[in-house]
Amino acid sequence: MIEAIMLGSGGGMPMPDRFLSSLLIKYKGRKILFDCGEGTQVALRKVNAGFKSIDIICISHVHGDHIFGLPGLLSTMGNSGRILPVNILGPLGITKIIDNLVSTMNSLPFELNVIENPTSNIVFLNTSDGLKMAKSCSDYKEIILNTVTLDHSTPCIGYSIYFSRQRKFDLEKALENQVPKELWNKLQKGESIVFEDRLYEPDMVLGSDRNGLKISFITDTRPLDKIADFINNSDLFICEGTYGNCDDIDKAISNKHMTFNEAALLAKNGNVKELLLTHFSTALGNPHQYLNNAKEIFENVTIAYDGLSQNLTYSE
Amino acid sequence: MIEAIMLGSGGGMPMPDRFLSSLLIKYKGRKILFDCGEGTQVALRKVNAGFKSIDIICISHVHGDHIFGLPGLLSTMGNSGRILPVNILGPLGITKIIDNLVSTMNSLPFELNVIENPTSNIVFLNTSDGLKMAKSCSDYKEIILNTVTLDHSTPCIGYSIYFSRQRKFDLEKALENQVPKELWNKLQKGESIVFEDRLYEPDMVLGSDRNGLKISFITDTRPLDKIADFINNSDLFICEGTYGNCDDIDKAISNKHMTFNEAALLAKNGNVKELLLTHFSTALGNPHQYLNNAKEIFENVTIAYDGLSQNLTYSE
Repeated sequence: MIEAIMLGSGGGMPMPDRFLSSLLIKYKGRKILFDCGEGTQVALRKVNAGFKSIDIICISHVHGDHIFGLPGLLSTMGNSGRILPVNILGPLGITKIIDNLVSTMNSLPFELNVIENPTSNIVFLNTSDGLKMAKSCSDYKEIILNTVTLDHSTPCIGYSIYFSRQRKFDLEKALENQVPKELWNKLQKGESIVFEDRLYEPDMVLGSDRNGLKISFITDTRPLDKIADFINNSDLFICEGTYGNCDDIDKAISNKHMTFNEAALLAKNGNVKELLLTHFSTALGNPHQYLNNAKEIFENVTIAYDGLSQNLTYSE
Repeated sequence: MIEAIMLGSGGGMPMPDRFLSSLLIKYKGRKILFDCGEGTQVALRKVNAGFKSIDIICISHVHGDHIFGLPGLLSTMGNSGRILPVNILGPLGITKIIDNLVSTMNSLPFELNVIENPTSNIVFLNTSDGLKMAKSCSDYKEIILNTVTLDHSTPCIGYSIYFSRQRKFDLEKALENQVPKELWNKLQKGESIVFEDRLYEPDMVLGSDRNGLKISFITDTRPLDKIADFINNSDLFICEGTYGNCDDIDKAISNKHMTFNEAALLAKNGNVKELLLTHFSTALGNPHQYLNNAKEIFENVTIAYDGLSQNLTYSE
């Protein structure tokens, strides 16, 4: 099971009851953060999430409402005993911004591994040292992070994260293939083994492929056709809906954001299971008022609020 | 009347119900801020304080819990239509930190006037353009900001701010001194005038001196004898009390902070009217538990909490 918790559903400026852009994903005791607006560390405390196990921080772009929580969060992670390296992904320019922010802090007891503008998939594995980037030769792609370039007023990237599901051990198949018992465990974990002059492959003990879970995180941007392809078949599509009212389309165009119905159209075209709208304008006091603008286009839509937790379960 | 509002009474890390170090002073429609921990802009919204009229920001030191709210606050001030310059005072090193923080923001629509480690009094006047630093020759010292070097693990300064009170116009004295009516207004405002070959001085129309109001802001530091002199006769002495329990004295010494009773002793020796304890350790869940440790030494002590507002009125 994977848990997605909305830490901050606001855009622009933080409000007392709506913090800035941040989403937490919990996976097997580890944590992945998307965006880190001011107050993210407070929002983490509100949902009783610890700081030490945050292994990956994905930043959409370097506008303040998406990054000004970083210095405080990283400092607190240091004070919480984090010593393992932390991966920070972000768009063009992220390295310089991180350098400048870090220069305002006390020295951190962990390394920052900054990955600027990744252009190919990045694979992470859950290890005893938390989520670690896999070597390029790794067969097992436990978590696949992918990015797409968005259309905002500054370099901005969207993310998809795919949690793959290991194939089940198939006892009948193992026996049929005459695989010695002592190899079962390693083969199940994806290793190929030569034993007594015979090559054993994982496929000899594993059942059929199983569906993983895909979550997409798209903010801030105008809608683009390629986004629908990028988010295709997501189990959860988290998308900015800065404006609820369709009449705000001119503002959405000039500020490079989206209206609820534009986000819903992406959800429909991307054939996602659920749309979670977030990043509401400070002027949008009650986003629920405009829910139908999205529902008319895509039925399974939820208006995010700070603290909203969603459990995603594998389909079989 | 002057209003002092505690925006954040915590030290170290922000908690859901206790934000980080920040104090707001409201004076004649203008605002002065002391420290700016992460979330200060949210705390300002909680007390319905606008952003546009913040003219002076005094930073004690550059630890994150006192400054990480600056980039968000300054950005929001810009978005709120602030165009007048903003004065930022701080200890040695503040200029570089501000430069680094500013480099992570979009360009601001106002100038930052950074005053690093001020060693003499700074006088501010309330003008139609907000609180502005007075020219050195100004006779009228409306607001006097003073600093003292503290004893912390990084360069740190304490502040006192004195709001002087204009002398009353004394009609009898003006008539007695045969001051022409057309000069009364200018003389009352502090100007000296030569009129028909005679020198007229403000003193010829003004009554006796009146007491102003003094507020002191001391965090983070070990107690020092000179602090008692510096805060002398303050109407409100805001002081760190990181630890409530006297048994935490070893922690206080090694972390360069104070216990409640140390702060109370400073209040007593400084002959202040009221002590407001703040900057509580995250481990100090209920500071009220230790109130008596301060009260035994200095009676008029208040435990700060976020949102606490205190009105200070002139004594006569």
